[in-house]
Amino acid sequence: MKIAIDAMGGDYAPEEIVKGAVQAAQAYPETEIILVGQSERINEFLPTSDRPRNLSLREATEVISMDEHPANAVRKKKDASIVVATRMVKEGEADAVVSAGSTGAQMAAGLLGLGRIKGIERPAIGTVLPTLEGGKLLLDVGANPDAKPEHLVQYAIMGSIYAEKILGFTHPRVALLNIGTEETKGNELAQTTYPLLKEAPINFIGNIEGRDFPYGRADVVVCEGFVGNIVLKTTEGLSGAIFQLIKEKITATPVRKLGALAIKPGLKEIAQMMDYAEYGGAPLLGVNGISVICHGSSKQKAIFNAVRVARECVESQFIEKIREELPLVKK
Amino acid sequence: MKIAIDAMGGDYAPEEIVKGAVQAAQAYPETEIILVGQSERINEFLPTSDRPRNLSLREATEVISMDEHPANAVRKKKDASIVVATRMVKEGEADAVVSAGSTGAQMAAGLLGLGRIKGIERPAIGTVLPTLEGGKLLLDVGANPDAKPEHLVQYAIMGSIYAEKILGFTHPRVALLNIGTEETKGNELAQTTYPLLKEAPINFIGNIEGRDFPYGRADVVVCEGFVGNIVLKTTEGLSGAIFQLIKEKITATPVRKLGALAIKPGLKEIAQMMDYAEYGGAPLLGVNGISVICHGSSKQKAIFNAVRVARECVESQFIEKIREELPLVKK
Repeated sequence: MKIAIDAMGGDYAPEEIVKGAVQAAQAYPETEIILVGQSERINEFLPTSDRPRNLSLREATEVISMDEHPANAVRKKKDASIVVATRMVKEGEADAVVSAGSTGAQMAAGLLGLGRIKGIERPAIGTVLPTLEGGKLLLDVGANPDAKPEHLVQYAIMGSIYAEKILGFTHPRVALLNIGTEETKGNELAQTTYPLLKEAPINFIGNIEGRDFPYGRADVVVCEGFVGNIVLKTTEGLSGAIFQLIKEKITATPVRKLGALAIKPGLKEIAQMMDYAEYGGAPLLGVNGISVICHGSSKQKAIFNAVRVARECVESQFIEKIREELPLVKK
Repeated sequence: MKIAIDAMGGDYAPEEIVKGAVQAAQAYPETEIILVGQSERINEFLPTSDRPRNLSLREATEVISMDEHPANAVRKKKDASIVVATRMVKEGEADAVVSAGSTGAQMAAGLLGLGRIKGIERPAIGTVLPTLEGGKLLLDVGANPDAKPEHLVQYAIMGSIYAEKILGFTHPRVALLNIGTEETKGNELAQTTYPLLKEAPINFIGNIEGRDFPYGRADVVVCEGFVGNIVLKTTEGLSGAIFQLIKEKITATPVRKLGALAIKPGLKEIAQMMDYAEYGGAPLLGVNGISVICHGSSKQKAIFNAVRVARECVESQFIEKIREELPLVKK
């Protein structure tokens, strides 16, 4: 198996990306890891001796930054790391691509380079969010701000397959994110989507409200990209704000500082549970090839885990599975 | 000033509602507090001696429960506590109504009983959410799942006036909840609304992302009801889940239990900052009278604070102020 890693994408690129790639190469000696980007910069962070034999470089001279218009940049910069890495998947030189760079650019590269799976009108970005019952899948978190009911059904099917094949849930419980539990609740989109989800080849458990998601009451939660992106970022922001507050408050006096020392391992356990890096990103769902999207602030561990996810996607024949399930949807 | 309180609405009605009413009557001796509901049940929880002289009862025999269809229930149950209390405002027998009962019923009673302020097509439900910079207003959190750009502009204007008059912000910073900061980002609704907000008579600071809200980077955050309700409930659910996790983890061993004891005051300070009861609800914005909506799980303190909010709304001539500002909106 061959996995191409966009070495130039992400807040900590290339250093942390390279470190994660080296760790993955060591952990999976039978997997070929190909770092794609400016070799001069990548080499700065590669070990000079004992470089894993299954780790190689592929030159890509250009870089797409976070503030460029994704589709335009992908069209113009044919030699950008994400474009080259995606092309490798298209041309069979790699089985999957992993990137922590601009999500928009990765999506544009995926759509233009790999195309969509037949039957999928829109791709979706899934993300594994921590809950009290472990990581659960939320999608779409921003591939398409607006969606139609049939898109949400496609998201649900792809999300369900992902949850089963990669996250390891048996008969994953799929829910529609809504503002009430009854079938008639919600905006027009939710009301029209609900009956379609009941007919879809998934374990649909009905609506879920915002307050239930953190308790892990569904394995896959479906919504349109605008809503999903806001939920994802609210979750990130609120967790960050609460932990910042805790840090301040529990060290505000000498007595509390002592107490803080004693409970520190407990807080560390929580931080670990909430850490997106443990889940290592999720693939762009619906494109005709494996393209794993990582958080922009991914460091070594997140990249390593993303390679793990990419491997599992390839091994489980995730794309083929989606192709098989789609014809089961009633039109 | 006279304030009618729906004694029968809320998870802890009538006991906690009555307690909050008594506390308010004692704190504001010049305000007449009228408890509306089944007097027999209310009397159970009223002090038998030293009952405040400015506290009275108004009989209302019916109750609207949380699982009834709001508009139908309001139409059918003419003698329901929320219907009677709202009618008192309409007929000048009270200056404001406060309720912790079914939000939908309170909204239906407001729309049917009080009508809309001229120029407002849709009312909005605002809620004061805790942030690292204190309470900030989010609206709409569910009055109307779907909204049009002009509705969001009306929400923004009403929210801005509320933030200034009741929450005490000078030139409140109003932001549009979106999935990116640039003007061109977002779904169709956000993209169309942005230029309208630039022209509105408010201090519009642009888009805000989900992750910025908990840090208090805007005083008023505007979105459609579907999104706002999900953000509100995600915030509630996630805070609850994190605190549940903290409780478990910091008491998991004897050493941690000791540490937990030392930092307890710090955690209490945080819990207080995050406590919705401190803010006491917010009025239904856009109806032609003051109707303050409380959280369903309101206890004494929340009801007391809601009466404070109702008083401030009346004193600041909040409704008149909205009427004055609306003609300034470019059509």
